Amino acid sequence: MSFESKIEKFAELTVKTGLNIQKGQLLLINASVEHVPHVRKLVEAAYKAGAGEVIVNWGDPICGKMTMVNADEEALKRHPQWEFDKARDYQKRGCAAINILSSDPKLMEDVDSDRIGRIEKAHAEAMKGNEDIKNYTAKNEGQWVIISFPNPRWAKMVFPDCNEEEAMKKMWDDIFYMCRITDDNDPIAEWKKHTDKIIEHKKVLTEYQFKELRCKNSLGTDIVVGLVENHAWAGGAMTTTKGVPFIPNLPTEEVFCMPHNKKTNGKVFASKPLCISGKLVKDFWFEFKDGVVVDFGASENYDSLKNFLNTDEGAKHLGEIALISYDSPISNLGRIFYNGLIDENASCHMAVGTSFPYNIKNGTELSEDELKARGSNISMVHLDFMFGTRDMSIIGIDQNDKEVEVFRNGNFVF
Amino acid sequence: MSFESKIEKFAELTVKTGLNIQKGQLLLINASVEHVPHVRKLVEAAYKAGAGEVIVNWGDPICGKMTMVNADEEALKRHPQWEFDKARDYQKRGCAAINILSSDPKLMEDVDSDRIGRIEKAHAEAMKGNEDIKNYTAKNEGQWVIISFPNPRWAKMVFPDCNEEEAMKKMWDDIFYMCRITDDNDPIAEWKKHTDKIIEHKKVLTEYQFKELRCKNSLGTDIVVGLVENHAWAGGAMTTTKGVPFIPNLPTEEVFCMPHNKKTNGKVFASKPLCISGKLVKDFWFEFKDGVVVDFGASENYDSLKNFLNTDEGAKHLGEIALISYDSPISNLGRIFYNGLIDENASCHMAVGTSFPYNIKNGTELSEDELKARGSNISMVHLDFMFGTRDMSIIGIDQNDKEVEVFRNGNFVF
Repeated sequence: MSFESKIEKFAELTVKTGLNIQKGQLLLINASVEHVPHVRKLVEAAYKAGAGEVIVNWGDPICGKMTMVNADEEALKRHPQWEFDKARDYQKRGCAAINILSSDPKLMEDVDSDRIGRIEKAHAEAMKGNEDIKNYTAKNEGQWVIISFPNPRWAKMVFPDCNEEEAMKKMWDDIFYMCRITDDNDPIAEWKKHTDKIIEHKKVLTEYQFKELRCKNSLGTDIVVGLVENHAWAGGAMTTTKGVPFIPNLPTEEVFCMPHNKKTNGKVFASKPLCISGKLVKDFWFEFKDGVVVDFGASENYDSLKNFLNTDEGAKHLGEIALISYDSPISNLGRIFYNGLIDENASCHMAVGTSFPYNIKNGTELSEDELKARGSNISMVHLDFMFGTRDMSIIGIDQNDKEVEVFRNGNFVF
Repeated sequence: MSFESKIEKFAELTVKTGLNIQKGQLLLINASVEHVPHVRKLVEAAYKAGAGEVIVNWGDPICGKMTMVNADEEALKRHPQWEFDKARDYQKRGCAAINILSSDPKLMEDVDSDRIGRIEKAHAEAMKGNEDIKNYTAKNEGQWVIISFPNPRWAKMVFPDCNEEEAMKKMWDDIFYMCRITDDNDPIAEWKKHTDKIIEHKKVLTEYQFKELRCKNSLGTDIVVGLVENHAWAGGAMTTTKGVPFIPNLPTEEVFCMPHNKKTNGKVFASKPLCISGKLVKDFWFEFKDGVVVDFGASENYDSLKNFLNTDEGAKHLGEIALISYDSPISNLGRIFYNGLIDENASCHMAVGTSFPYNIKNGTELSEDELKARGSNISMVHLDFMFGTRDMSIIGIDQNDKEVEVFRNGNFVF
């Protein structure tokens, strides 16, 4: 099967299974100019599936970097009203969105972290009073899906011994494999089977209503993560507030839940490096006391981590804990992709930053104050980090204080 | 000299000589995703020359066509307020703009002209009451420059006997040649010399203050174009209302002036085909009576021409007449580029649609009503068409009704 045919399968899977685009719906695609032929396939698939209008918001990471280095800082901190009006106009039209991730972990390595931090903070400030924009996605008012396309710089980082062309080919092969697209299968049927399994897992976990999860491994992780009451494990398919099912990540392996923002205690060590504001942060750890980060460390790019944690108060609290068996297809590839959304599916992870309202039963109907009162963490940011290992053990404490083994040797017990 | 070095020369010429970007100024670049490496050179050159921020508005003609064919018509007719607010925000910041043309004359050939016409009409309607946005450029409130980059479809049309790669190479060679970029010259110095010559021509023509120009050739053109009083021929360099000189077209060979919108009579035949709304209109002609088109024809895509003329009342009147010697570098290439901005520099041309206020002395200080009272044509559109030929003769009638020979055998007499 030709590369082009696989891209077409991927596009159809994204639009139909991932997004479940509705007849006449507006679709936004956030894409890089480095993926023109592949984005065109998405647009084609979307119109074929009945989209009412497809708007592609193109960006270029290389021009973006030149701007980050050279432009007036005050210009980059501006957030004119029309930007918010634009987002609300699309949302009022009931838009769906495809976000294409293409990691570039070293892109910003030589850019002043303080400047990046100040600009990102200005963005976060500007969003205050405009939370409805972020909430459109956070509350699943419209369908959204994140997929990954490789770029040469990222490919060379994952496959440093290959030339650029080979590295790109291997990256595409890996992405097709993770997304369960093979020469002769029907990926849409494959994803139906796969998400049915995830849905079973989240059902079992939600029924347990664990008060807390105790996670330990040989990296040094020894942490108790308290969960909010009436939590709802999520994963695989989701449903918009209008009742449209969709799968927000392709690929996805995880089931995830909401930590209580005052009930995490102990130390967690990252099991993979992480790209923050374009810089690769390595061998990092957090120490929590009553839900808040009280200490942290990193062997490289400590400042990026520090700037991130200082974005707002919520950036120092957990917003998510996700469980993935160590024996997952992505994990079995045995690679570090330097991409949160792929790597997170290879391993158990947590996130500092904002939580997802749908991780509380009927949470999308609650106000921000009501969510906070339940222990939800609120932040302008959300950053996943991996902590799963081959020897991860996780014990759940149920409503009767009984210990239930959840993970043994990195994998689900049930 | 490598292709890359020539592109760098072109970028520097565009930013410094064409745009004359000012320290700290905001620059907008309207570009296609088909020109990523070349646009990056422009962004680099702009920051090097001191731009405060560079924003690239990327578009893709292929996705654009899919949308034009498939999207809901009502969605495409929308013009939400934020679009106008966005333009005004950039203009309030004193932006300059680079517009990259990349012709695609056959792109829309199989798309319903009526639908395109209705959508374009809705755009023109939406601009009513928002004329200040268009006037920012029309009145030269900020610098702007239009340059051309080839694309494979356009290249194959100009060089049908070459394969795509050869055709693209030849197109770039032609564009470098037209823009006076050679292996070992200093194109910035070259352009200084060239524009000095154009400036001399427009000074002489402006001093004559011709009442009308009588144009005749063997194609059948026999037309009298009345000019407005106190007109000012323009061409080569212009100056913004803030006093910044710039060159709005690279390449440019023309000097041009403002016809009176009630004083054109006779018939004019196009000497080259023209792309309108993505369709190639061939062998067309207009007949004017007292300034308005009373009859017209075309051998191909008559409907596109008709739709265009129906955009608004001003689309049926002349807004520009431009004189270019038949012995110009572009003309000497002897090719049809199917691109108004290149082809117009190979030959005398006129435009139906809006006129340029600066073609009246102090015209940029006049209101729209004052301009109309002087005979300026006002329209949402402006479409150049070529009428110059090797045997073009043009006679100017001066203030004392004396005949002055301006063009003989296609070339300037003085």
